[in-house]
Amino acid sequence: MKSFLLLILLVAITTTGYSQSTQPYLSLAEAKRIADAAEAKAIENEWTVVIAILDAGGHLILLRKIDGTQIGSVEVAMEKAKSAVYFKRSTKVFEDAVNEGGLRLLSLPNAIPVEGGVPIFRDGHCIGAIGISGVRSDQDGIIAEAGLSVLELK
Amino acid sequence: MKSFLLLILLVAITTTGYSQSTQPYLSLAEAKRIADAAEAKAIENEWTVVIAILDAGGHLILLRKIDGTQIGSVEVAMEKAKSAVYFKRSTKVFEDAVNEGGLRLLSLPNAIPVEGGVPIFRDGHCIGAIGISGVRSDQDGIIAEAGLSVLELK
Amino acid sequence: MKSFLLLILLVAITTTGYSQSTQPYLSLAEAKRIADAAEAKAIENEWTVVIAILDAGGHLILLRKIDGTQIGSVEVAMEKAKSAVYFKRSTKVFEDAVNEGGLRLLSLPNAIPVEGGVPIFRDGHCIGAIGISGVRSDQDGIIAEAGLSVLELK
Amino acid sequence: MKSFLLLILLVAITTTGYSQSTQPYLSLAEAKRIADAAEAKAIENEWTVVIAILDAGGHLILLRKIDGTQIGSVEVAMEKAKSAVYFKRSTKVFEDAVNEGGLRLLSLPNAIPVEGGVPIFRDGHCIGAIGISGVRSDQDGIIAEAGLSVLELK
Repeated sequence: MKSFLLLILLVAITTTGYSQSTQPYLSLAEAKRIADAAEAKAIENEWTVVIAILDAGGHLILLRKIDGTQIGSVEVAMEKAKSAVYFKRSTKVFEDAVNEGGLRLLSLPNAIPVEGGVPIFRDGHCIGAIGISGVRSDQDGIIAEAGLSVLELK
Repeated sequence: MKSFLLLILLVAITTTGYSQSTQPYLSLAEAKRIADAAEAKAIENEWTVVIAILDAGGHLILLRKIDGTQIGSVEVAMEKAKSAVYFKRSTKVFEDAVNEGGLRLLSLPNAIPVEGGVPIFRDGHCIGAIGISGVRSDQDGIIAEAGLSVLELK
Repeated sequence: MKSFLLLILLVAITTTGYSQSTQPYLSLAEAKRIADAAEAKAIENEWTVVIAILDAGGHLILLRKIDGTQIGSVEVAMEKAKSAVYFKRSTKVFEDAVNEGGLRLLSLPNAIPVEGGVPIFRDGHCIGAIGISGVRSDQDGIIAEAGLSVLELK
Repeated sequence: MKSFLLLILLVAITTTGYSQSTQPYLSLAEAKRIADAAEAKAIENEWTVVIAILDAGGHLILLRKIDGTQIGSVEVAMEKAKSAVYFKRSTKVFEDAVNEGGLRLLSLPNAIPVEGGVPIFRDGHCIGAIGISGVRSDQDGIIAEAGLSVLELK
């Protein structure tokens, strides 16, 4: 019995050690569920937007452009999501800071001070981000949140 | 009688004028169907790839990255599709030309001489392209064709 | 006792489930050990090089430029490592392919066909890469391997 | 005697000529000592940052990214250091100027108006710079100063 408990202890240590040197990631299946919810919200409001979802390294996992969306939004959506994952915070934080006079942020590489980019966290790790562009930035933000709401239901 | 002829003339002008100034386009709904077919083919073969679908202006409509695909394929898939829509021809045409000694093509802006980028035509118009990257370039080409096959079923 | 075994089973399942949605990563401590070994090898041969180590997303974790190294090697070392992590293979694979006539690879975004970039794998995941530049590309490759040899000693 | 005078003349010319055409530089060994001190300060405060050290030409000598630091800080740290070496002044000078209404600085190439980039001088020459990014910009500045403090101890 003693050796049995020891074994459990060893497994526990190994497991902990492993999980310390690993980190969760965002799958394509999850990205699709997020995008479906975001797209449904956009269509419900008759808003034309681009939905971009990136991984923890800032690389695209999924992108969708609703018919009729301005083409400039393709890059803006990707840049908003990149900003969110690069700085582990919503782009609204940068937008608010700039609005309150923090103009120096306008020169920060990869920091987009426009609402609509939101990081995705799991177990304390930033595993990616969603970026929305196409309508007013607060509306973009509503779509982003609608997308991420599916993760909370799990 | 006079007014009747005038009406016909007006209809003729309007119709001709209208049909001369429109062109078909690729919708997000169609892009999803293409991507679904491409993704199914990739999964069937256990191939990890990025699927990129662009519009007639070379802008992203849809992108999906299957879990585990090398991140370099995100840009390569987009560039292959861009090459196909920018030059209205399959990237395989460029690959074959380079293999046969057409090295000057290596310097051509936006021309990627690697199979996997295929333009999409409708009524004689190039309405977009699909780009696949992740496995061998001939396998990328098979997935691209599998994706586009759904358009022929319509 | 039965419930005890059940608990263990549950823990095991949970653990496995967790590890499936997580992936290992390269720490700064490991990057330093790799760089120390690479730097020692370079100094032993009186070779001046830049050592660049990236994470799984292609972002710098560590860089060192030995005094006197040509400044062009800073970017080349980073690009070699980026190529290795973006395509999950050694840049020597691309170099060999180009040497054997695969000239189309010269146009592939982020693919550097010069030896000296080597990906780092753990548990089947590409967790980063090392890139060396400064001397002959086969010598760069020797330094890269010397750096990665410390991981095998663990 | 003649040859003796000639020797003195030669030595004088060589010496003068030599000292006129040299400038001090920052070695990798020094960069490591600076980075060690900066990293120790960051760890002491449990701050996650990127440490970037550049030479007089604005090229990387050393970079370290503490585990868990937002990836956006890799480029920001490099850009802060670049700004400091390109303009031979602390980025805090630019930050203060922008805060006092000097908005024109936001368009100045390579000038980052955010504290954390500090130039390194020796014998009146700017021999490089350190850039820190990851926490609040005044905290980044504290780490930068902690790093450079080791040079004053010499």
